Amino acid sequence: MSGNTFGKNFRVTTFGESHGPGIGVVIDGVPAGLEMDETFLQAELDRRRPGQSRVTTQRNEADKAEILSGVFEGKTTGCPLAILIRNADQHSSDYSNVANLFRPGHADYTYQKKYGIRDYRGGGRSSGRETAARVAAGAVAKMFLKTKGIQVRACALNIGGVKAEKFLWGEVENNIVRSPDPEAAVKMTEVIQQAQLEHDSVGGVVLCEVLNVPAGLGEPAFDKLDAQLAHAMLSIGAVKGIEFGAGFAVAEMRGSENNDTITPDGFDSNNAGGILGGISNGDTIIFKAAVKPTPSIARQQNSIDLNGNPVTLEIKGRHDPCLVPRMVPVVEAMAALVLADNCL
Amino acid sequence: MSGNTFGKNFRVTTFGESHGPGIGVVIDGVPAGLEMDETFLQAELDRRRPGQSRVTTQRNEADKAEILSGVFEGKTTGCPLAILIRNADQHSSDYSNVANLFRPGHADYTYQKKYGIRDYRGGGRSSGRETAARVAAGAVAKMFLKTKGIQVRACALNIGGVKAEKFLWGEVENNIVRSPDPEAAVKMTEVIQQAQLEHDSVGGVVLCEVLNVPAGLGEPAFDKLDAQLAHAMLSIGAVKGIEFGAGFAVAEMRGSENNDTITPDGFDSNNAGGILGGISNGDTIIFKAAVKPTPSIARQQNSIDLNGNPVTLEIKGRHDPCLVPRMVPVVEAMAALVLADNCL
Amino acid sequence: MSGNTFGKNFRVTTFGESHGPGIGVVIDGVPAGLEMDETFLQAELDRRRPGQSRVTTQRNEADKAEILSGVFEGKTTGCPLAILIRNADQHSSDYSNVANLFRPGHADYTYQKKYGIRDYRGGGRSSGRETAARVAAGAVAKMFLKTKGIQVRACALNIGGVKAEKFLWGEVENNIVRSPDPEAAVKMTEVIQQAQLEHDSVGGVVLCEVLNVPAGLGEPAFDKLDAQLAHAMLSIGAVKGIEFGAGFAVAEMRGSENNDTITPDGFDSNNAGGILGGISNGDTIIFKAAVKPTPSIARQQNSIDLNGNPVTLEIKGRHDPCLVPRMVPVVEAMAALVLADNCL
Amino acid sequence: MSGNTFGKNFRVTTFGESHGPGIGVVIDGVPAGLEMDETFLQAELDRRRPGQSRVTTQRNEADKAEILSGVFEGKTTGCPLAILIRNADQHSSDYSNVANLFRPGHADYTYQKKYGIRDYRGGGRSSGRETAARVAAGAVAKMFLKTKGIQVRACALNIGGVKAEKFLWGEVENNIVRSPDPEAAVKMTEVIQQAQLEHDSVGGVVLCEVLNVPAGLGEPAFDKLDAQLAHAMLSIGAVKGIEFGAGFAVAEMRGSENNDTITPDGFDSNNAGGILGGISNGDTIIFKAAVKPTPSIARQQNSIDLNGNPVTLEIKGRHDPCLVPRMVPVVEAMAALVLADNCL
Repeated sequence: MSGNTFGKNFRVTTFGESHGPGIGVVIDGVPAGLEMDETFLQAELDRRRPGQSRVTTQRNEADKAEILSGVFEGKTTGCPLAILIRNADQHSSDYSNVANLFRPGHADYTYQKKYGIRDYRGGGRSSGRETAARVAAGAVAKMFLKTKGIQVRACALNIGGVKAEKFLWGEVENNIVRSPDPEAAVKMTEVIQQAQLEHDSVGGVVLCEVLNVPAGLGEPAFDKLDAQLAHAMLSIGAVKGIEFGAGFAVAEMRGSENNDTITPDGFDSNNAGGILGGISNGDTIIFKAAVKPTPSIARQQNSIDLNGNPVTLEIKGRHDPCLVPRMVPVVEAMAALVLADNCL
Repeated sequence: MSGNTFGKNFRVTTFGESHGPGIGVVIDGVPAGLEMDETFLQAELDRRRPGQSRVTTQRNEADKAEILSGVFEGKTTGCPLAILIRNADQHSSDYSNVANLFRPGHADYTYQKKYGIRDYRGGGRSSGRETAARVAAGAVAKMFLKTKGIQVRACALNIGGVKAEKFLWGEVENNIVRSPDPEAAVKMTEVIQQAQLEHDSVGGVVLCEVLNVPAGLGEPAFDKLDAQLAHAMLSIGAVKGIEFGAGFAVAEMRGSENNDTITPDGFDSNNAGGILGGISNGDTIIFKAAVKPTPSIARQQNSIDLNGNPVTLEIKGRHDPCLVPRMVPVVEAMAALVLADNCL
Repeated sequence: MSGNTFGKNFRVTTFGESHGPGIGVVIDGVPAGLEMDETFLQAELDRRRPGQSRVTTQRNEADKAEILSGVFEGKTTGCPLAILIRNADQHSSDYSNVANLFRPGHADYTYQKKYGIRDYRGGGRSSGRETAARVAAGAVAKMFLKTKGIQVRACALNIGGVKAEKFLWGEVENNIVRSPDPEAAVKMTEVIQQAQLEHDSVGGVVLCEVLNVPAGLGEPAFDKLDAQLAHAMLSIGAVKGIEFGAGFAVAEMRGSENNDTITPDGFDSNNAGGILGGISNGDTIIFKAAVKPTPSIARQQNSIDLNGNPVTLEIKGRHDPCLVPRMVPVVEAMAALVLADNCL
Repeated sequence: MSGNTFGKNFRVTTFGESHGPGIGVVIDGVPAGLEMDETFLQAELDRRRPGQSRVTTQRNEADKAEILSGVFEGKTTGCPLAILIRNADQHSSDYSNVANLFRPGHADYTYQKKYGIRDYRGGGRSSGRETAARVAAGAVAKMFLKTKGIQVRACALNIGGVKAEKFLWGEVENNIVRSPDPEAAVKMTEVIQQAQLEHDSVGGVVLCEVLNVPAGLGEPAFDKLDAQLAHAMLSIGAVKGIEFGAGFAVAEMRGSENNDTITPDGFDSNNAGGILGGISNGDTIIFKAAVKPTPSIARQQNSIDLNGNPVTLEIKGRHDPCLVPRMVPVVEAMAALVLADNCL
């Protein structure tokens, strides 16, 4: 199997490593005649880019997108759309110290076991940098979904145990943690800063909603819309779980509570998260994704080297102490890819 | 898209409706020379079969598997293996009362919206009966995995809020709720019976483990092993969430806690659930799947009919008041399919 | 890879061996609401069936199709449509003499090499009987294409060197060789009978046309419509070549001859065979498929046994001395599958 | 469907238009640890490049390959390998005269019908330039096949009716038409030059052989090795037919002639072209591909414009009067892709 392609109709293939010449994506299946909004594409990439604030990593990635194909006179042609993002930060000397070690919580160990060879610079292919290509593809998917009236949005629901209580979606991009609750945003920021002071990191939960989805999307039996979304979300390295609608809370619910009864005006509740039997029911699609704490921490950790000998290592350099804010656009991008795939 | 196929190498295509002539599966990619253990195949189907006890539905499904192809003189030939399970319970008169209504929590509404036509008898294709074909395929996958030493097992971790505290895997098949904790099993049974008395149902959580997985399975970037498992689990109609290892608890963990440090003897912990960067790390794969309460309840519920008019309906007949015990073999089957697919 | 599935949208998976319980097909992607014409389905199977005349094999295959799923009240539901054809002729004693030998021109040798095991009865999976499942699927594809006005037709263009000169399509089913030229049909029949008298067989060429194809079908770069059709035709065991429009004759044509110039009323010629740049151009799609002489001949032939020792073998029993007439519906079926796949 | 990906295991996705920023390919599934021979990669691209001689087009394409990902310290990493070839010749003014016209024999008309929009510069995506990306991918496939001892080679068998009679494979790259027969090469060159003088073009046939193929490659029923090769070859814009082994000549052969009898030392003949029942038999794979005359000719031709009005057009500029020599490496590349895909 070769797993660098996602989707069947809106088909995305990504490539690239953290410290190689660049990363990129080929999107096959973009309908012809779609207006290419390059400003929006760049803005989406900027949302994912680190180095925007105190609480995110200071590594400077320019992330300028170059469209290599598939667009003519400002419109898509129906031919594959390729986007290349050159890596600005390609000096590999920073990483020589981890060349022969396996960083805990990273894919170093498993890549070595699987491939017997590994581009150790910044994680290579397993670096979070790979998600930039997803965001670029997601931006194109969003342009397409916009023509259908479908909107994808996400936010930080929980960071280090601090939960958003209010859902002011207009506030999400106004604070550095992408919380929909400005008060929680302050506390979330404090939690992150405290972890950083302690050379540690925190995890969280991203909430994602898809609005204005028509009923009927998704393919039983195996390609249920929630199955596709779960696949998409768990394909993000930092994501460790997903739940739809009431999610794990169903374990303590009765059928009479959990069933979304139906009226001529729609459903009385949305415990299903907008999906019934794997098919969108016309209600908002709602899911949550668990994001693990950044594994890169500036602390001594036990590990082994390539020869299996015990070592202690400390990952030098500035690390993003919480991935949640930057995962918000990545989660949106992956959700947009799934929706676009199912609208075609 | 046509979503009735799962997997790339160990490729499963299912068909059939609850009240048609039968359901079945074609498995393409079974290696040649595998001994076909028909007794085991039938035993796995019997595990999923309803009507085994007081706390599961009394509908009598014989579920006799007939192998139509791909086996010669007791061994697989490398050609597609087709299995047919005839439906015994094919009299459709029971369902005429719901022909024009949408049962809350079921896929009736979404199938109607998607296809404009619907086999309303027992849910048709969206019936839980469809999972019998998965279990048949999963049984073959387990036979193959056995040759690799890989074992898949699952149990009821939580039913209606009652949690297993002990993990005596040998006990799982000794109680009707498939709990690894015999004491919890008693309470779980009570919770189910109480719900049934109240014409209601309860949800729960299935725990699944895959043992003896070699390091190196799974395909970055999009076909990470956890992404494939998430896809598989959310393709089960009753499953509403999945989490790997520490799962949603990562939201309140620090990186220093969550990272599984490495020693020459293996990992110090398994918060990753046996998967790093989407690739198996050699540790046990662990995940949990949330199972919703059975939507079929013998209570008055609000809904609408085909014309959009409000109705109240009550789903007559005996219903399984908790799906968790029967989902245990289904979860195992889907996990086995994913693992088999990645071992080829 | 597992190669028993064809198509992406109108997705066909076949199974079954010559002398197992049966053969069949699952079609995933049939649009909901299509009227299922079971009489037509059976008629198509009857067209492929051997034993219809002196010049075709006398083996009696009943080939009764049973629809197992996907149809409700006479219409397709959008769920996978499974069709099973039981094997009537399942007594395997006839084939014990070839169990340890490799018949020349058959797949015995290559199956043994690939799988290390082989259902030797009648060729098992590699038997021409497998094409019955294709014809069943093709019949459903034709029902769907009919709703689009698209018609697929084929005929015997050449049998044993005798070529059809007239193209009276209405005559094709009126003679046993399926020739569009009644006079040629007489000679073709003679050629076949002469070969049979000499315990030999003859090859030929099938001509296929697809009428009323809208412009725009086919997917560059790799899934050009002609590439898909070529894939489909060469997936038939007896087919050894395909050519579109002018075909191999282009080797001796000038560009000025071969180019189909365009007028407001359409193309001046059809050397392209209805496909330009892999996309249908609105003209009739025309291609020819070369069909090899039946490899089963009642003559002494040199071969080897499982241990590599030289043997001479003679394939007893009645064999079809020319496959062309029976390949006509198979070629049609495969063309119909490709077209249906591209119309979705 | 989105047709810009080829293969399942050695999975190639191409992008790019004739006059956009560049063309390229992502190869997913290249085994880790393969030595990347960039000199060979460039040499293969140079073989396809036009402008090498009098009888090929003079358009100057530098075709320098840049590897963007998947290679680390000279070896493949198992991650997707992306190759970009910038377009040197990007000035689009040359093509303004055909912006609103449909060139006969080109895909202009069908792209317009399919997509409603078209990059008319040099054919855009439908340009033969797209094959450079295939050759780049094929070069990597050849590097992989070399580790298995498998060799792919092709030559011009027929150009404008002149046929090669000798098969001196060592001579193929020593003459500008890539003929294995030096004497025929002289005549082939004359035929091409004569056509060019008359502002016309000629077609031909490419012969391809794959040596040292182990028995057992190919996947029945639908992904037979010949079906995959046919798909690959017909996906080349200029190819109009393919035949394996005896090919269309089987129409006039008897079974007793066509069957390749078997001896302890191998097959007595190779009418099958090295493939039986869709599986390689260990003999050399042999097939022929028909290549149409270049549709671009500097003559007045009838056509229509975007509004359906009749026009006459003449395609100015230098055109390659015969595509056969440049199709030789393209045919090799596609064959290498199929073989690599089946070796994984």
